[in-house]
Amino acid sequence: MVAIKHKNVRQELLEALKLSLETGGYISGEILSGKLHISRSAIWKHVNNLKRDGYKIASVTSKGYKLESVPDLLLPDELMPGLNTKMVGREIKYYSEISSTNEEGRRSAELGASDGTVIIAETQTSGRGRRGRAWASPQGGVWVSIILRPNIPPEHAPILTLLTGVAVARTIKLATNLTATLKWPNDVRINGNKVCGILTEISAEPDMINYVVIGLGINANITADKFSKDIRDQVTSLELELEHIVDRVEFTQLLFEEFEKYYLKFCCGDRQVIPEVLNAWRQLSDTLGREVKIETINGAITGRATDIAEDGALLVLAENGEVSRIIAGDCIYLNNRNVY
Amino acid sequence: MVAIKHKNVRQELLEALKLSLETGGYISGEILSGKLHISRSAIWKHVNNLKRDGYKIASVTSKGYKLESVPDLLLPDELMPGLNTKMVGREIKYYSEISSTNEEGRRSAELGASDGTVIIAETQTSGRGRRGRAWASPQGGVWVSIILRPNIPPEHAPILTLLTGVAVARTIKLATNLTATLKWPNDVRINGNKVCGILTEISAEPDMINYVVIGLGINANITADKFSKDIRDQVTSLELELEHIVDRVEFTQLLFEEFEKYYLKFCCGDRQVIPEVLNAWRQLSDTLGREVKIETINGAITGRATDIAEDGALLVLAENGEVSRIIAGDCIYLNNRNVY
Repeated sequence: MVAIKHKNVRQELLEALKLSLETGGYISGEILSGKLHISRSAIWKHVNNLKRDGYKIASVTSKGYKLESVPDLLLPDELMPGLNTKMVGREIKYYSEISSTNEEGRRSAELGASDGTVIIAETQTSGRGRRGRAWASPQGGVWVSIILRPNIPPEHAPILTLLTGVAVARTIKLATNLTATLKWPNDVRINGNKVCGILTEISAEPDMINYVVIGLGINANITADKFSKDIRDQVTSLELELEHIVDRVEFTQLLFEEFEKYYLKFCCGDRQVIPEVLNAWRQLSDTLGREVKIETINGAITGRATDIAEDGALLVLAENGEVSRIIAGDCIYLNNRNVY
Repeated sequence: MVAIKHKNVRQELLEALKLSLETGGYISGEILSGKLHISRSAIWKHVNNLKRDGYKIASVTSKGYKLESVPDLLLPDELMPGLNTKMVGREIKYYSEISSTNEEGRRSAELGASDGTVIIAETQTSGRGRRGRAWASPQGGVWVSIILRPNIPPEHAPILTLLTGVAVARTIKLATNLTATLKWPNDVRINGNKVCGILTEISAEPDMINYVVIGLGINANITADKFSKDIRDQVTSLELELEHIVDRVEFTQLLFEEFEKYYLKFCCGDRQVIPEVLNAWRQLSDTLGREVKIETINGAITGRATDIAEDGALLVLAENGEVSRIIAGDCIYLNNRNVY
């Protein structure tokens, strides 16, 4: 695990190596030593650490060092430079493998992690979706949890799930030009297949939130063979849709920025952002107007999804004219090949 | 910290010492050694441990050991024998001092503590009430948090606060014959002064509870000088009301038993228990029928408290005839000397 708050020698070294690419490629240990105010043997040590983490760096006695390639990993060293946010991702806990980023997010929050702290893992061994369901998390996805401490009443928490969905759909548009749609309550889809799930968990007193952990599982660079057969026709990935991989670092930076735009207004009790989020969600939704079956822990409800309420509840109009307000549940589309 | 699940040598030794009190007092190391199947030097070691924890045990060479007094502490060794519950208190984490039992409860729950696990501390250094308010927790109180994993939707969590209030009031009646009343949402009072506060915290997905931690702060054996001056005329303790101390061990055992009676029905989705709890709460309440001012994070509401709804919300009838449903807030009585 690597936790990084401020720019350090390692990041400065990486920056210098990247800059030198623009002017020929090699940069001598002597120049680096002068620039970073550390000894040449310390430079050598840092270079070796970077190599161990997957950076390819050539070293030639008379010329110095040259960065040849950056690993395809969501390393804080890659994510933080150029990240244009105030709090989301200003603190990153990075794991090459973890049981579940949301689980670690809850633990970190209990130990006092600050608003906007992010947990990132390259793979999850027990990734989870809603209600404890398994979530496949192979290398190549964006498995991220964001710890938040918003000053909102607990009953506004479902808005955070909608807000996150809107941010993911916008990020996909900006980064790939693909059009994503939102399926109530917590799926982001492309061409009718799930590309991202969102898991919102809260710790709260009846009228005060302690913290929220929002888990995002985004199928970014994942090939079809990585999905188990039973879900293969219901899921997709950015790579599958684009037929090429995306830059996960750029994608994740954009995601944090898009999310924060809404969140900063929302967390401070700006009520105006709620209709703004709801309207954005309505426009991106592929649930509204459909015949749906919603399975809740109190039973199933069938009807037409007509709108989303102020508190994030789905309004479902039954045949007998009765309107149900549903806070959470599993939504099944009845008039569509993608039934789940 | 002492965590105890099953009866162990220490508990068997204590039992033997207590039994021998009925037949003269002293019991020889040889008899104890035979009874407990451990060496006499092991007996001597356990006796020393008990002495270190506050038990007074005399040892006379020719006679053996005699238990002279039990410390006035909520030790698991004292609580667990004779505790007539299925799950509440079957696992106890005991601290002589802790920052906050609820905080430790949440952490233990994150690490997998089972349904009914109890955190007990003799004193809290950062005891908390609702919305992060300080809660004085000197030696002599009952500072307890119960970890629960009920199979109920998150919106039923406020019922747990009411249920706990009912259990506390009944325990007070059974243990002391004092009459306690309930003030919405989370106070237990005697003669108009607060004797207990309840802090319910949940960790949840939108439609599933991960866990609940219910914190109880009961002013049991606390003298007036232990309360800070600014709250002294609004609070009381069992000792102050009775003019003698209570047996905290017996009181806590009763509390766990009374709580569990309702909880076992509630956690398994028995809906019948909700009206039962609400009716018990209505009978014990000193809030209903009063002119109140409720301060919520969305503003203040003034009117007459008329009833409690199915979901634990307080119904307040304003002068203009409008009825407000209030899930949580601070309740101030307007026509009473005890205004807070």
